[in-house]
Amino acid sequence: MKLVPLGDKIVLKQLEAEETTKSGIVLPGQAKEKPQEAEVIAVGPGGIIDGKEVKMQVKEGDKVIYSKYAGTEVELEGEEYIIVKQNDILAIVE
Amino acid sequence: MKLVPLGDKIVLKQLEAEETTKSGIVLPGQAKEKPQEAEVIAVGPGGIIDGKEVKMQVKEGDKVIYSKYAGTEVELEGEEYIIVKQNDILAIVE
Amino acid sequence: MKLVPLGDKIVLKQLEAEETTKSGIVLPGQAKEKPQEAEVIAVGPGGIIDGKEVKMQVKEGDKVIYSKYAGTEVELEGEEYIIVKQNDILAIVE
Amino acid sequence: MKLVPLGDKIVLKQLEAEETTKSGIVLPGQAKEKPQEAEVIAVGPGGIIDGKEVKMQVKEGDKVIYSKYAGTEVELEGEEYIIVKQNDILAIVE
Amino acid sequence: MKLVPLGDKIVLKQLEAEETTKSGIVLPGQAKEKPQEAEVIAVGPGGIIDGKEVKMQVKEGDKVIYSKYAGTEVELEGEEYIIVKQNDILAIVE
Amino acid sequence: MKLVPLGDKIVLKQLEAEETTKSGIVLPGQAKEKPQEAEVIAVGPGGIIDGKEVKMQVKEGDKVIYSKYAGTEVELEGEEYIIVKQNDILAIVE
Amino acid sequence: MKLVPLGDKIVLKQLEAEETTKSGIVLPGQAKEKPQEAEVIAVGPGGIIDGKEVKMQVKEGDKVIYSKYAGTEVELEGEEYIIVKQNDILAIVE
Repeated sequence: MKLVPLGDKIVLKQLEAEETTKSGIVLPGQAKEKPQEAEVIAVGPGGIIDGKEVKMQVKEGDKVIYSKYAGTEVELEGEEYIIVKQNDILAIVE
Repeated sequence: MKLVPLGDKIVLKQLEAEETTKSGIVLPGQAKEKPQEAEVIAVGPGGIIDGKEVKMQVKEGDKVIYSKYAGTEVELEGEEYIIVKQNDILAIVE
Repeated sequence: MKLVPLGDKIVLKQLEAEETTKSGIVLPGQAKEKPQEAEVIAVGPGGIIDGKEVKMQVKEGDKVIYSKYAGTEVELEGEEYIIVKQNDILAIVE
Repeated sequence: MKLVPLGDKIVLKQLEAEETTKSGIVLPGQAKEKPQEAEVIAVGPGGIIDGKEVKMQVKEGDKVIYSKYAGTEVELEGEEYIIVKQNDILAIVE
Repeated sequence: MKLVPLGDKIVLKQLEAEETTKSGIVLPGQAKEKPQEAEVIAVGPGGIIDGKEVKMQVKEGDKVIYSKYAGTEVELEGEEYIIVKQNDILAIVE
Repeated sequence: MKLVPLGDKIVLKQLEAEETTKSGIVLPGQAKEKPQEAEVIAVGPGGIIDGKEVKMQVKEGDKVIYSKYAGTEVELEGEEYIIVKQNDILAIVE
Repeated sequence: MKLVPLGDKIVLKQLEAEETTKSGIVLPGQAKEKPQEAEVIAVGPGGIIDGKEVKMQVKEGDKVIYSKYAGTEVELEGEEYIIVKQNDILAIVE
């Protein structure tokens, strides 16, 4: 059982607090929009989204910084995921 | 008697609480936008919606995670349905 | 004397409470946006609305579920009507 | 002295309360947006409005139902008028 | 010293209260948006404004009814002017 | 050391109160949006801004009336500047 | 480990208070939108962003004035960065 995102949507899995500490990402407190590090689990096909061509620029396994503001949390088989639009991904951590 | 959605609209039937538990979807409390698992009952024809070409990407019988925020609940012959736009569907559960 | 809607506007006549009960539509209480069953009385010509081609997809006599949120109620010769945009019609009941 | 509307604007003259009663229009109380019956006094030329082609669909003398929400009231030589955009006209009463 | 408006902007000079009375314009009290009679002092060149072709439809010396809502008042050499966009002009008074 | 504006942005230097008085501009009190006279110090290159062609219509040395609402104040080497978009410039004072 | 911005996003590193003082930038207090001087650390590839061609106009090492309003702060390996869209960069300091 897996999540297959539509359009420009991307399924993320938030990195554990321990891992976050290892990677050195510290998130300053900001109530409205908390940037976070996550791993890309699944990527929508892109295509014409809202009348505009969208090419997907991240791939499964990428570590990314995303803006949590518009994301939606789901839990599938005991694992928590976040579904965001590609536009909510700010940068890839290489 | 059945619901025939217009445009990019989709008729969903929410999966029962029991079934939801079996599939392992747990919905974290979030007042404004509750993601939910549902089955696709009927799919609008797509086409030019608000001046933009929309291709329908889900089909009858799909299990989907949707964002309930803009959905509209109706009850027809004792069954409850939710009508959403395709854009409110986040992912297909396979 | 009749109402001739402009553009993508549609004149609806709400089905009576009794009839609503017969058709099995029950409307859950939701203050902001009450979906309702109605009969289509008159349909605007469509065409270029706000710079975008709109084709009308309902016809006189259709039973429809509409979102009352943006509708406007008028009463003509003792009969009450609701004028909505086609976009506010969610599904046809067949 | 007369009002010559620009673009997609239309000058209306509200029908008198007596006449409104005769035509059978009753306006349910709704603070924010009061639909009203009025006569079309002057029609703008249409054309490219905000980058979009607008064709005028009402003509002088039409009785119309309009949404008063965005209209502007002016009084010229002792007569009161309302200036609305064509988009605020819901239907013609024939 | 004079004001040369850019784009679709127009410099207006409000008609004096006396003159307003003579022309018969009475402005009903409406806190948010006060329609007013003014004379056109200078007209911007129009052209591509915000990606859309705008043709100027008023000329110097026109008496116009404008919606004061978005206008900006300036005073130059002891004279007060209002700068509005053409879209804020509702009608020409002929 | 100088400020080189990007896109449709323009660097302004507000005219001193004394000079403002000389030029006769008096600014009526309006909390939200204070029009002001300023000199153009540097002009962005224009070009495609937000998908739309923007041609710059002011030049270094122009005296302009701008709407301060969206401007950003910076101070460089003891001099204060305001950076605005061309769209926030209402008129040139000639 | 480094941040690779997507689309029109740019990674900035705020200049230290000491350096800010040296360059002479003083930031007047403005609660909602604090302009700031920063160095460009990494620049997204640009391309079609939200259906519109965006060309990147800053490069690594540029000193820029940005509008902090929509920026997102992250900390990677003990260093703090700000990720902004190119549209939030007002001017380059040369």
